[in-house]
This record gives sequence, structure tokens and C-alpha cells, in this order.
Amino acid sequence: MARLQDAAEGEHFVEAAFHIIMKEAVRRGTDVNEKVCQWVAPEELESLLELELPDTGESEVRLLQHCRQVIRYSVNTAHPRFFNQLFAGLDYHALVGRFITETLNPSQYTYEISPVFVLMEDVVLKKLRELIGWMTGDGIFCPGGSMSNMFAINLARHRLYPHVKQRGLWVVPRLVIFTSEEGHYSLTKGAAFLGLGTDNVWTVKTDGRGRMLAAELDEQIQAAKSEGAVPLMVSATAGTTILGAFDPLAEIADVCQQHGVWLHVDAAWGGGALLSKRHRHLLAGIERADSVTWNPHKMLMAGLQCSAFLLKDQTDLLGSAHAAGARYLFQTDRCYQPRYDTGDRSVQCGRRVDCLKLWLMWKAIGTRGLRDRVNRAFACTRYLVTEMHKRDGFRLLMEPQFVNVCFWYIPPCLRGGEETPDFWQQLGRVAPLVKQRMVVKGSMMVGYQPHGKHVNFFRQILISPQVTHEDLDFFLDEIERLGSDFQPM
Amino acid sequence: MARLQDAAEGEHFVEAAFHIIMKEAVRRGTDVNEKVCQWVAPEELESLLELELPDTGESEVRLLQHCRQVIRYSVNTAHPRFFNQLFAGLDYHALVGRFITETLNPSQYTYEISPVFVLMEDVVLKKLRELIGWMTGDGIFCPGGSMSNMFAINLARHRLYPHVKQRGLWVVPRLVIFTSEEGHYSLTKGAAFLGLGTDNVWTVKTDGRGRMLAAELDEQIQAAKSEGAVPLMVSATAGTTILGAFDPLAEIADVCQQHGVWLHVDAAWGGGALLSKRHRHLLAGIERADSVTWNPHKMLMAGLQCSAFLLKDQTDLLGSAHAAGARYLFQTDRCYQPRYDTGDRSVQCGRRVDCLKLWLMWKAIGTRGLRDRVNRAFACTRYLVTEMHKRDGFRLLMEPQFVNVCFWYIPPCLRGGEETPDFWQQLGRVAPLVKQRMVVKGSMMVGYQPHGKHVNFFRQILISPQVTHEDLDFFLDEIERLGSDFQPM
Repeated sequence: MARLQDAAEGEHFVEAAFHIIMKEAVRRGTDVNEKVCQWVAPEELESLLELELPDTGESEVRLLQHCRQVIRYSVNTAHPRFFNQLFAGLDYHALVGRFITETLNPSQYTYEISPVFVLMEDVVLKKLRELIGWMTGDGIFCPGGSMSNMFAINLARHRLYPHVKQRGLWVVPRLVIFTSEEGHYSLTKGAAFLGLGTDNVWTVKTDGRGRMLAAELDEQIQAAKSEGAVPLMVSATAGTTILGAFDPLAEIADVCQQHGVWLHVDAAWGGGALLSKRHRHLLAGIERADSVTWNPHKMLMAGLQCSAFLLKDQTDLLGSAHAAGARYLFQTDRCYQPRYDTGDRSVQCGRRVDCLKLWLMWKAIGTRGLRDRVNRAFACTRYLVTEMHKRDGFRLLMEPQFVNVCFWYIPPCLRGGEETPDFWQQLGRVAPLVKQRMVVKGSMMVGYQPHGKHVNFFRQILISPQVTHEDLDFFLDEIERLGSDFQPM
Repeated sequence: MARLQDAAEGEHFVEAAFHIIMKEAVRRGTDVNEKVCQWVAPEELESLLELELPDTGESEVRLLQHCRQVIRYSVNTAHPRFFNQLFAGLDYHALVGRFITETLNPSQYTYEISPVFVLMEDVVLKKLRELIGWMTGDGIFCPGGSMSNMFAINLARHRLYPHVKQRGLWVVPRLVIFTSEEGHYSLTKGAAFLGLGTDNVWTVKTDGRGRMLAAELDEQIQAAKSEGAVPLMVSATAGTTILGAFDPLAEIADVCQQHGVWLHVDAAWGGGALLSKRHRHLLAGIERADSVTWNPHKMLMAGLQCSAFLLKDQTDLLGSAHAAGARYLFQTDRCYQPRYDTGDRSVQCGRRVDCLKLWLMWKAIGTRGLRDRVNRAFACTRYLVTEMHKRDGFRLLMEPQFVNVCFWYIPPCLRGGEETPDFWQQLGRVAPLVKQRMVVKGSMMVGYQPHGKHVNFFRQILISPQVTHEDLDFFLDEIERLGSDFQPM
């Protein structure tokens, strides 16, 4: 009885595809002279890609052609002129970590199946905790920052009311979560998903630069109590999504301590700054948190997804909140200690290995290499801001605290006049137009959004160690090229 | 200003590591003459691996050595004699899909960032729905089957009580979920996580072969109602984790219809059988479900993780249950229709691309190729069972419905006598002993567990198209070799 699959043929395909990946996705994808994206409208792309799944398999030649097409029409998030999301760039070592993970195809639940990765996850989480300032504690990798934030809600709930796990929310009073008006929307999604309800996420006002006002938080907590609700958790943000603001963690920790409320710090984005001696003061007080979300797939460039949920707790709260004790998977009569079977501490069953890519990158460039990257991103941001000040037409929303640069580009025809409601309305049309033109041209990518009372503005994000001052000069020039002929409607 | 990272050096590392991956993980990892695993106790492995993260980066030579070590001490889940989990084997095309995904590093939330994958996810989900028997509907890829099952709970809740999203569970009566006593533990985890409480997961009795008794379900639903609770959802299982049992979906659908209860089918494991004309009758009635979980990373070998959550709904229940409408990410003034920005329908923000690996594999071998694999797995299972019947000492728990073969190996010294409680106690020691010996030897891997009233028994899982009759003969011989000298305590 023969094997159904021809290994030699299979390996040949992998080799051939690897050369395409290296040429088209790695080399071209990071080449500053290539396009960042190849814009095609959805309806047209649909027919270009021949996506339909066939009854009979296709030839190797055709399959390799599909691979080329998939790469060709995908966005090069590794390109030095991709400034669009909270992730960017390409770390070659992390990429190898990802390739190894995909080839080994492990699941991070038992030592039996993932001996290397059970031990490795532990070491990596320990290192991240040390950067927070915790010499002990706990943690786990989650499928993204939103899930990590949900873990925080669930653990806060479990510490306060362990019987909710068994009996449901009906046996406890209404629970309220607090985050700033700049906090990430995953808190809202999490509150809905975990049964708390979005009405029970209270948003706390921020100062002029997007930082939570601790005094307002205190008032809100008292207001919740006076309504008979129970303040469950405060989610402070270290590095808000849009403005890159850092909540004053020490002040917030004081308020939480006073009220006995769980302090979670959503440092999914800003956690990277902990690597830098120069900038880690932005997160001063984080060591007083009960839990932290930190996504190394963002600033540290580990690759999606790599989200650490970190805990000060040493009582195995993760286990008591999440475990179901399935005996088919977590046996107690194995030839090693059951504590090495870490999977039951997640709400997932099969769980991807997210530690190897970060571990290998860290081995390759060390803590210093990561620190240099973070410092460089701050320095490049400073350079960009300085250059903006030199040019007409670039107006910052505020001086950045982090590597988010939020600004309007004011085209010549809108300059110099009075800033009437009509001016703002017209200005709100600039970013979408410029964005559309740059995407069609493929020259670079940067995000924009309206926010609060502000009309559409750009949010430039700087992460990749491949970005140079030349790229930033290009960035400003290109916005001028694409937007200077703007005409009011 | 130079770029911080040397691209040529980086590419060289990726090329060098790729050769190691091909040689050590792909070729050796699938070679039947190599070990399945290299057992080392945790304490020893910890020192072998040099896991500590350094301040200063290491040399390429050292890094490549780390890659070799990580592969060497990891379990070869692609090996033809890995029968341990509900995933196994290696599909070369899916692997390439994974490599491309990792290199492009996309996030599956907007068309702007993932044009190819937004369209591709749609096509792949449509194909999976067609196999269920739905010509319309909805769906999304989730990070694992547990999350997919949680999505089902949340959507059932949202359809019945949409205001829970806003106001929390306090404004509705107690909700109860039903699954069989053989159902997956993720329902319990999900009920805890979503605030329903594990007490409100009611387990329904099964027949002698692990299939939910529809009459019992009906009684339980009535009992819940009489307590004043609201029956929220039934999660029927198509392919239970241990026994591989298929609940009678048509009968269960009748009960659900009668009571107006959401029917979810957890086909994470058994969904693969839908590919086979010969075996899809096992899931007859699945088209009457409201939602289905199906993990192509299991039987279809797409690679972890690939879990489809599929819906009959056409009212964008996913959107209304999950959306938070973050304007920084989901703009409405883009140059394409907002419906192509699918990310807000998840509870995640950043979301991995899980469709490409499945899509590329499907293109490569077609629906027929997938069907042949599924049929072959069933046929190999039949072969194994027939061979077991020919040998002394192998006793099945029951004739398998699927590709789970649950059996005891009774060593010579325990044969022929009366089956007293002491006999069973001794028998329960056999599987752990045999397992430990096979892991230390590295010859193969198969799971075992106690279950209900049954002492430890083996659960052999057959998936990979690389498995031959010779491997199965080896499997039986090896258990005899490792277990025949067992002595009672």
C-alpha cells in the first residue's frame, strides 16, 4: 500500500515556492523602489485571482502562478514606506521562527506535544515580566491583544467573584469597567462578549493630549458605587491606538489601590517603550498593575500574532479561572509533572506557538538590539516632526508622546484664511483624497481617521528599523505632491 | 542615515535556515525511519536548549544551531507514526500557504490591508458552507474551535436577547446550553468566559456509542424551562473528541425546532467527513443547524490554526453581535464598499490570515483529493480494526464510527481470568506504561485517557495520507513489544 502523497514532489514544490517567496515577498516586498501596494478594486481583483476552488487539483506551474499572484496583489507590510498600522517591517529572524513553527505545526498545550515551546514560552514571558519590573508572576500568549484584554476582564472577575465561573453573572451585582475615552475598542467588545454589556464600560475623560485624568477616574468609580454597581477593573492604556498617549499609570494605580480595583494596563502598543531606558518613564508605575497586555507583534516586529498577557498573580488565577480539566488531554499519570501541561490555563484548546519567533529574534539581536530599534523609532519620529515644523501646510494635532504622528495636511488653497466650520469640513476631505491617490499609485501607505471633534487627519506610525530620514522626507514630499492641488467643493 | 538592519545578511540567514528546515523538519520529520520524538525530561531539556534571552545578539552560526535544536527536540507531528492528536501529517501545499502568510504578515480586517485575503476568506467559507448544504449564509475564521464555539454561544444569545450586548446578562433570565456528556470541554470554558456559568451547561446522556439521546435532550430542555431558565443553544457534536461519535443531527434538529432553540453543530473534528460521499451520512441533518464549527486544521491538514465558524444567518448577526465600529480602522469614506472591511465582525482586532493555507491546498488537490484522503483515513481505520480483531489482547471499546479507534491492550498476564475490579485497575496501568516506553523510544505516539467509567485506554487517530498498512501493522506490533511484559502490581 503506497503513501497517498508524493514526498519528493511535495518538497520540490516547497523549494520552488520558497524561491518565489524570497524574490517576490521578501526582496521586492522590502525594496524601497517597489510599490507598497498594487491597488485593484474588489470586483476586478476577484476575477484576476481565480479564487474558485476546483474539483480536480491543478498543476505545479499553475499553483506557483497563484503564489505569485497572491503576493503581487497583497500589501507589502514590510515595505519601508508602510506607515499604516501598528505593525510594519520585517525581521528576518522572527520570520525564520515563524517558518519553523509552521513546519513543526505544534500546539501549545502539553509538554508531551510541545516540550520545547512549553519551556520557551515560560522564559519569554518571564523576560517580558522583568521589563515590567516583576520578578515573579504569570502569563500566557493569546491570539491578539483583544483576547488578552478579555483575559484581564475575566481574571479580575474571577478574583472578585470566583463563583461566577460556575453560576454565571446573575449571582453578582452589575460590574463596571473603566477605560479612557482613548482606550481601545476591544474593551467594549470584551465587555459584550463576556456578558458585562457595553453600557458597563465607562469612559474616563482625558487631558488635551489623550491621557486619562486620574481625578475623573476616581469620580467615576465613586459614581458607579453610588449606583450600586461594582467597579471591576480599570484598563489604563500605555500607547493609545490613535494618539499614542500614555495614561499616568502611577496616579491611576493610586486610585485603583484606594478602591481595591484590578488595574490592567493595555500596553499592547506602548509596551515596546519598556525596552528603552530613555523612554520607559512613559510607563512609570506599570509595575503596580495586576495585569498587562503587551503585543510584541507590534513595535517589536515579531509577526502577527504575538500577544502576551502578563500577570502579577502567583496563585494560578489563570488556571482557576479557565481550567476545565479535560482528562483526555491533561493526564496526571504522565512521566513528568502536570505543571508542564500549561494549556488548560487558556480558554483555547489547540493554541498556536507564538513564542518562537520572538525568542529567535531576541537571541539574534539581544535586548540591546531591540532597545536600539525602539530608540531609533522615537528618534525618527522626532526627525519627522521637526521637518513638519519647517514646512507650510503640516499641522500637528499635538506633539507626539510616542511614535504616532497625528497631523493634518492643509493644501495651499485652504491656508491663511479663517478656520470656519466650512474650512474644517473641507479639510476633512483632504486625507481620504490623498490616501486614495497614494494607494492607487502604490507609493506609500498611511492611515487616517476622524476622531472625537477632529475631522479626518493622518496618523503616521513609525516602527521599522529600515525606515530612513530619506523615507521620511519622501513621506512629506509625497503628501504635498498628492494633496497640493486639492480644491474645495 | 543607513538602515538599521542588513537585508543581505538577513536574507542569507533565511536561506540558510530554510535548508535546515527542509532537511531536519520536513524530510527527517516525515521519514518513517526517524524517531517521532526525542524524549528529554523538562529539567534536562531546559539546560540543553540555552533558552535565556541575551543582552547582546548571537552569531549566525549559533542561531542556526538553535534552530536545529528547536527542531530536534520538538515532536514530529508530521511523522506517519504520530497518532496522538486530532491533527497530524504534513501537506506541502498548505505549508507553502503558511510560509506566504507569515512572510506577508497581513491582518485580516480590511480590504485596504488584506485585499487578497478578504476575498479569499469569503470564497473558502462559501465552499465549506456548500459542503454543509447551505447555498447562502455567513462565516468567519476564528483562532481555534473553542473560540468558534464561543462565537456560537454569543450569536445565539444575541439573536434571542440583542440588548445583552449593551446591558449585560443581568437583564435576562438564566440561560442554559445543552451538549452531550461526550461534547467538547470548550462549551464549558465558553460558558464560563461568556458569563453564563458552567452550571448552565447541561450534559445530555448518550447511547452506548457516545451519541446524544435526542429524547433525553427534549426532557432536559423541558426541565430547564420548568426551572424558569431559558434554553439558549444546543451544541450537537459531529465527531466527538474521544470516541469519534456523531450525534443524530436530524433528531436533534427536530427537538431544537420544536423548542425554538439555536442548533450549533460542533463539527470541528468530524466536519472532514462531509467531503466523502460515502461517509457524509454521519452528518445528515447538519444543514438544519444555525451554526457550525469546522476545523480544517484537523482532518483536512491545513495546519494550526484553521477553524471556520459557519452560519446560516443572512442578517449580519456577526456584525451586530460583535461590531464596535472603530472609525480609525473601519472608515466609511474609502474608495471601496465598507462591506469589504470584514474585521469588525470578529471579537478580535488584528486577526491572522487562516484561509490561504486551506485555499492553496484545495487548489493543489481539489475537492477530489481531499475526498480521497478522507476516504483513505476511514479505510485505514477499518484495516486497523480488522487486524486488531485477528490478534489476542486488543479489545475495542466499541466499533468506531469515525477514525478514532479506542481500545485497550490487555497484556498476556491479564488475559483469560475474571474481569474483577482489580483486573480493571491493573489494566488502567498498561496504557501509561506503554506510552512512556514508546515516547522514550520515540517509535510512535498515541494518546490514552480514562473516560467515564472506563480505565485508561488508547485513542488512535488516523489522518495523514502518508500512513500505510505497514505503519498500522507496526503500530500493533509495537504495542505488543512495549506492553507484553507488563506485570501486575
